[in-house]
Amino acid sequence: MTIPDAAAEAQPEAGRTRRGGRAAKRGGGAGAFDQPPFRQLTVPFPPTEIVSEDELESIHLASLRVLKEIGIEVLHDEARAIMRRHGADVREDTHRVHFDADMVLELIAHCPSEFTVHARNPAHNLRMGGNNIILAQIASAPNCSDTDHGRRPGNQADFRNFVKLAQMHNIIHCLGGYPVEPIDIHAGIRHLECLRDITTLTDKTFHIYSLGKERNQDGIEIARIVRSVSAEQLRDEPSCFTVINTNSPLKLDIPMLEGVIQMAAHGQVVIVTPFTLAGAMAPITVAGALVEQNAEALAALAFAQMVRKGAPVGYGGFTSNVDMRSGAPAFGTPESMKAQLIGGQLARRYGIPYRSSNVCAANTVDAQAAYESVFSLWGCIHGGANLVKHAAGWLEGGLCCSYEKMMLDIDLLQMVAEFLTPLDLSEDALGVEAIREVGPGGHFFGSPHTQARYKTAFYSPIISDWRNYETWAQAGGPTSIEHANRLWKERLKTYEKPPMDEAIREELDAFVERRIREGGAPTDF
Amino acid sequence: MTIPDAAAEAQPEAGRTRRGGRAAKRGGGAGAFDQPPFRQLTVPFPPTEIVSEDELESIHLASLRVLKEIGIEVLHDEARAIMRRHGADVREDTHRVHFDADMVLELIAHCPSEFTVHARNPAHNLRMGGNNIILAQIASAPNCSDTDHGRRPGNQADFRNFVKLAQMHNIIHCLGGYPVEPIDIHAGIRHLECLRDITTLTDKTFHIYSLGKERNQDGIEIARIVRSVSAEQLRDEPSCFTVINTNSPLKLDIPMLEGVIQMAAHGQVVIVTPFTLAGAMAPITVAGALVEQNAEALAALAFAQMVRKGAPVGYGGFTSNVDMRSGAPAFGTPESMKAQLIGGQLARRYGIPYRSSNVCAANTVDAQAAYESVFSLWGCIHGGANLVKHAAGWLEGGLCCSYEKMMLDIDLLQMVAEFLTPLDLSEDALGVEAIREVGPGGHFFGSPHTQARYKTAFYSPIISDWRNYETWAQAGGPTSIEHANRLWKERLKTYEKPPMDEAIREELDAFVERRIREGGAPTDF
Repeated sequence: MTIPDAAAEAQPEAGRTRRGGRAAKRGGGAGAFDQPPFRQLTVPFPPTEIVSEDELESIHLASLRVLKEIGIEVLHDEARAIMRRHGADVREDTHRVHFDADMVLELIAHCPSEFTVHARNPAHNLRMGGNNIILAQIASAPNCSDTDHGRRPGNQADFRNFVKLAQMHNIIHCLGGYPVEPIDIHAGIRHLECLRDITTLTDKTFHIYSLGKERNQDGIEIARIVRSVSAEQLRDEPSCFTVINTNSPLKLDIPMLEGVIQMAAHGQVVIVTPFTLAGAMAPITVAGALVEQNAEALAALAFAQMVRKGAPVGYGGFTSNVDMRSGAPAFGTPESMKAQLIGGQLARRYGIPYRSSNVCAANTVDAQAAYESVFSLWGCIHGGANLVKHAAGWLEGGLCCSYEKMMLDIDLLQMVAEFLTPLDLSEDALGVEAIREVGPGGHFFGSPHTQARYKTAFYSPIISDWRNYETWAQAGGPTSIEHANRLWKERLKTYEKPPMDEAIREELDAFVERRIREGGAPTDF
Repeated sequence: MTIPDAAAEAQPEAGRTRRGGRAAKRGGGAGAFDQPPFRQLTVPFPPTEIVSEDELESIHLASLRVLKEIGIEVLHDEARAIMRRHGADVREDTHRVHFDADMVLELIAHCPSEFTVHARNPAHNLRMGGNNIILAQIASAPNCSDTDHGRRPGNQADFRNFVKLAQMHNIIHCLGGYPVEPIDIHAGIRHLECLRDITTLTDKTFHIYSLGKERNQDGIEIARIVRSVSAEQLRDEPSCFTVINTNSPLKLDIPMLEGVIQMAAHGQVVIVTPFTLAGAMAPITVAGALVEQNAEALAALAFAQMVRKGAPVGYGGFTSNVDMRSGAPAFGTPESMKAQLIGGQLARRYGIPYRSSNVCAANTVDAQAAYESVFSLWGCIHGGANLVKHAAGWLEGGLCCSYEKMMLDIDLLQMVAEFLTPLDLSEDALGVEAIREVGPGGHFFGSPHTQARYKTAFYSPIISDWRNYETWAQAGGPTSIEHANRLWKERLKTYEKPPMDEAIREELDAFVERRIREGGAPTDF
């Protein structure tokens, strides 16, 4: 099932070869720096199937057994009532709900396979599903860091800086949540201040936390205001999303279920992501963790369809392993890559857009941060991820949003985007005449074929230091983290606020101020 | 065409799940350290096709036009004579040889699609082609470095250390050449000393440089001596390989052609790898560079088949781009990844084993070294590479063999190997009973399903630091390069020489000493 894309004409062109660095459109404030233009990314090859159809079916069937025989603990009274009305076997004494396979499969068949997520700037609308990929900034880090001032708890000043970096960089398609948790804002009004910042400092689409009904409702209203549409139009045009992390194993708590109800009822996107770390909240085997992931995902996705048939959703995979010595979660591991690929196979089996992540467990921007992240991106791309959460900035297993990691990830993502850009195979690009002209033993540097293309032929990385060893050593031997540190400071200075209609700004402020006066939202979630 | 694998029973078992770290066989000297056992790696999914069949055909046809219309400059008289005898259009005045498409395709149809490369220890035999991957150590770096003593020109002591590390680590399947060039050994006898070291310090298969007929002949004789087989048996059992880098564009020099003649005539493996850097020795477009790569590869591969039908060969791709500001080669770039994938499609089109590389342009083991390397490995795995040269140790675009990068790469390769290991999807691994037992809201740490598996469930990285931030910071905040530095020193101390029959050792020494007395090989190559 595909939601018709009414705003297709407003979509950024999924055009051909765009290059980075010197060659491309300028970002941030006009003329601030060069970067590839904002565009909808697509993957030009099919995802990698790492298990056979039969093997996939064994995971699918095992998860249906879990739903039928073991069931899910559902803590929300209204949610259980909804489930009962849809034929689930609800046991009120234990809050345990058992789901029949047929019922689950009938319900998830209503999940749309593809839809558009609308931004207040239509040029930043995003297509979710199919072979499209959306890259979202890191979310929910309690700490942040840079190499100048070290590590510190999240705060509004850093929060705003990261939000600005998300707006400035075209490769970051949307916000993924709060890049860092600004704990200097009272929790009752934090969502109001943060969403006001996000919707004024950026014109991209964004995430709403499911931490109580009021936060969902406030977020949805803010999405409506900044897009200047009616509640009815918003319901038909998803404009924000929430991530529902189940309490693995097999538990759905009140704020989550409330989030599903509010978002689905209002036609906004629900990304269900079980938090199934193998060996901790899930079986130690990757297969077992996937069975649990799939059972939990199917239950919550089916519930979203009970709330509203056709509600836009995403199937999230976050299965990784833990360090069995410490219990700490590990990321970018071979086990998590397998889980990423199989998670994608499962999501495609159900025809649901797939969410994965760019994550690492490193404590600093060293080789480990890079290899764990690129392994994660490898899993995302070949797993067929449609939404990559935490695509930029994630360090320390998500406990820190790093300025330097943000810049490193921007470079990594731009490289991946270039890798995915279809190759020019025109007669001229095949270059037989250029080869003839240069001939055996010649050189292409000076040839007209080269001269006509050298400025735009290749992606220019922003972190990589390609100087030879001697020149590099004379310059003090800077490492990647030092380049990244220079870069975010240079770029942040050039930030310019995206335009917003004065009337919209006033309506937004009036809403936020009123809700703040009302005391915001309860903090007992 | 597949060479029958007479030694199949001697093959290491391509078995199921093997884990790293604590769980696996010990390496080096008995009990020295834990590592996954030596095994033939295979890829459990098909390679990624990044261009369509039609697009691939356009590259194929363009390269045949290059061979027909432009031709290759062939500097070796006997080689031109052989080519003429096989129907090529040879122009003696310009040394230019033009090849007919039908002739080329008829010849390369004789290339075996799969064969075994024999080591003196049959447990280290390797299968080349199909879905097998062989990982070879870095070759030919002029410099080496470690963080204790910095960067220095190659020398015999470091050469021996690197060769020992290749022997000790099961994930390094074979030597790829001289990991570092020991310039303190006279060039005339260097190959004799180096191959004596390689064949006594390791029992793995190895590379012979094609730098004049004598070096090929000496190397082949050493391969024969250490395997203790007849020349006839050796001809049927490839036991060493050479890499032929064409002088791109479109030129084959005397040592290369001599190398092809010697190796093919003796049934040893010829890996043809055009050195087609887009924008320098090849057109600036990736498509054009691939056309040139393919033309040069086909010419040299066809020549190998002229020398001996069925000679074991490999199709090498090394197409990357250059930094257009400096002309320096770049590695692990998005452009090179595309070239890796399409190179694999071309090799499979011809049914020839495919060679690629794990390369980077970084000057130190920082984030850049890691991301460029993992991007390269990504291209290798999804490109369907059968031989990954420079798999461990490569830094600075190949100008330096780094001890720390060697350890980093060993970890990366072990992670990739684990990613490729088929997942256990048995009923027990699916874990429905474990999930039932733990139930909603429970924890898997203490469950019997976890307890029975926790020691071997996951790969344990050797570089990654998974401590939490506080513990890590208290320990001084070590980065990956520091872990790598500690590791190679610890491990190298535990090296133990593999056994060699006394008679073989005497025959080897006698041969090497005689050839040294004779003056070795000419140095005017």
